[in-house]
Amino acid sequence: MYTYEEFSKLINQYISEQKYARSPQSLYDPIVYDLSLGGKRVRPILMLMAANLYKKEIHTFLSTAFAMEICHNFTLLHDDLMDQSERRRGKPTVYKKWSANAAILSGDAMLVLAYKYLAMTKSEKKNEIFDVFSDAILEVCEGQQFDMDYEHRDDVSEEEYITMIRLKTSVLLAASLKIGALLGGASAKDASALYNFGIQIGLSFQLMDDYLDVYGDPQVFGKNLGGDILCNKKTYLLIKALEMADADTKLQLIGWINRDVFVNTEKIIAVTELYNKIGVKEFCLEKMKEYYNNGLQYLEKVSLPAEQKCELKNLSERLLNRNM
Amino acid sequence: MYTYEEFSKLINQYISEQKYARSPQSLYDPIVYDLSLGGKRVRPILMLMAANLYKKEIHTFLSTAFAMEICHNFTLLHDDLMDQSERRRGKPTVYKKWSANAAILSGDAMLVLAYKYLAMTKSEKKNEIFDVFSDAILEVCEGQQFDMDYEHRDDVSEEEYITMIRLKTSVLLAASLKIGALLGGASAKDASALYNFGIQIGLSFQLMDDYLDVYGDPQVFGKNLGGDILCNKKTYLLIKALEMADADTKLQLIGWINRDVFVNTEKIIAVTELYNKIGVKEFCLEKMKEYYNNGLQYLEKVSLPAEQKCELKNLSERLLNRNM
Repeated sequence: MYTYEEFSKLINQYISEQKYARSPQSLYDPIVYDLSLGGKRVRPILMLMAANLYKKEIHTFLSTAFAMEICHNFTLLHDDLMDQSERRRGKPTVYKKWSANAAILSGDAMLVLAYKYLAMTKSEKKNEIFDVFSDAILEVCEGQQFDMDYEHRDDVSEEEYITMIRLKTSVLLAASLKIGALLGGASAKDASALYNFGIQIGLSFQLMDDYLDVYGDPQVFGKNLGGDILCNKKTYLLIKALEMADADTKLQLIGWINRDVFVNTEKIIAVTELYNKIGVKEFCLEKMKEYYNNGLQYLEKVSLPAEQKCELKNLSERLLNRNM
Repeated sequence: MYTYEEFSKLINQYISEQKYARSPQSLYDPIVYDLSLGGKRVRPILMLMAANLYKKEIHTFLSTAFAMEICHNFTLLHDDLMDQSERRRGKPTVYKKWSANAAILSGDAMLVLAYKYLAMTKSEKKNEIFDVFSDAILEVCEGQQFDMDYEHRDDVSEEEYITMIRLKTSVLLAASLKIGALLGGASAKDASALYNFGIQIGLSFQLMDDYLDVYGDPQVFGKNLGGDILCNKKTYLLIKALEMADADTKLQLIGWINRDVFVNTEKIIAVTELYNKIGVKEFCLEKMKEYYNNGLQYLEKVSLPAEQKCELKNLSERLLNRNM
């Protein structure tokens, strides 16, 4: 069994060796830039870990693992353009550094590259792997669309929100685990349990993201607090607050949402105080724990001795605690 | 052997029966709209024709044929956004009717849908078909990037231009033919000859497009003449004119290109007169004929009796004469 650090080294080494760039440079430069921005490589590592549960030798799966990472970066690249996000991993995003058109076209080429690496997969389950992969990307697109649609609505329910983050965040983590399991030769039951483990861990991960934006330690979190509050992002905290607030508190919250002119720190402090008054902090922590424990229960269902599954368990813990 | 009209009916019937739309509607509505705008369905028909050269029963190949059409429409959808084209087939483009974000995300989902339909392919050559498909899309992206890069250059050579239109236009036609051939069970030699037939026909088709914009009959052409001239589009005519003009004529041509304020009809008449003086009309017709004949030579190399290949020959003739 490899450790997290070994997996990380393996996939980063593999990525750095790949020669996929052709001509014109103007198409491939943004792709090389984007794929060398780093990141935690969570999806390929989850895939390799799942495969490694069943197979000792996992080097032949690196192309498939890279396909998961390219695919993830493709979705971020297009999302950053759609959301007009100017920075990613401390660097300017592709659309900011080059142009919107570069982001569109280089992103498209990345998705094709992901399929080309996926096509290198050697497995008798290749057809099923392709289906899991395509379904996951389609669901990420659906999640991103829900997210954009919800921007214009003030009545998004908790259920709708969970559906959205499941599609946008969880599904690709889950698909990575399932594809790894299929590559390793897991039973259908194990592959499905690992998929569901990924779904639940992804949900708790996203709720933690929402939580840390308001209640995190900026030193640890790596970015300023309150970013979601300032742009009225529909997070679990906001949705739950709108649902649970009494009439008067709700009016105050909506007042802040609709205000065009404000001092940033004042809005952050005021909305955080409303959150505290309504008590959504505890709800969010509770829900996070619930999904995390659901995830562990699915992991337990995987028919292998607990000690073999500890790397996956550790990784999900580190993911949740942002300790990586 | 099916006729062109029968193929057309088959693929349109198939497309109208497909239920690929899921939730959210805001993601799938633009896709349904885009795929029902019509069009000549040239790529799926070429694919089916190539398969039909070798196999009588081609109904099982309809999903693969649809994949070619989705893929083509995906490239148009994103191109229309990048080029800010407001109309396509007489209707508003997706980015105009919805938004830039809708065009990006629904386009992405279309590419995944294309792969999902491609994955339904039942063939022992499935791996090779996937490779031909992915390479073709990647090359279309490369062609679109070259096209955008060339907008800012006044020294594009004929060779560079031909490379660009080969990637942007020819390759997907060629890939459709090759995939059809592989599905039908053609020899590698025949599959390659059909691919090259598609490349050459595609080049002559694109040159005809450039030609008709200046010299076409607007009644037949279906749009106003001179659109390429007005936006200084790097067409074969313009590139060849810049290459062949004497110093004085070139200065006049560049004068029109750089002029910010002009009366549309005056610019069209003036540039057309310069083209006539330089003689690029004949060069374009010559080149077009050359590629067309090259194409027919490749078709002849396909090891089948001439009468079996007449539907393909007729289609390429109709394509060139826009008689369909």
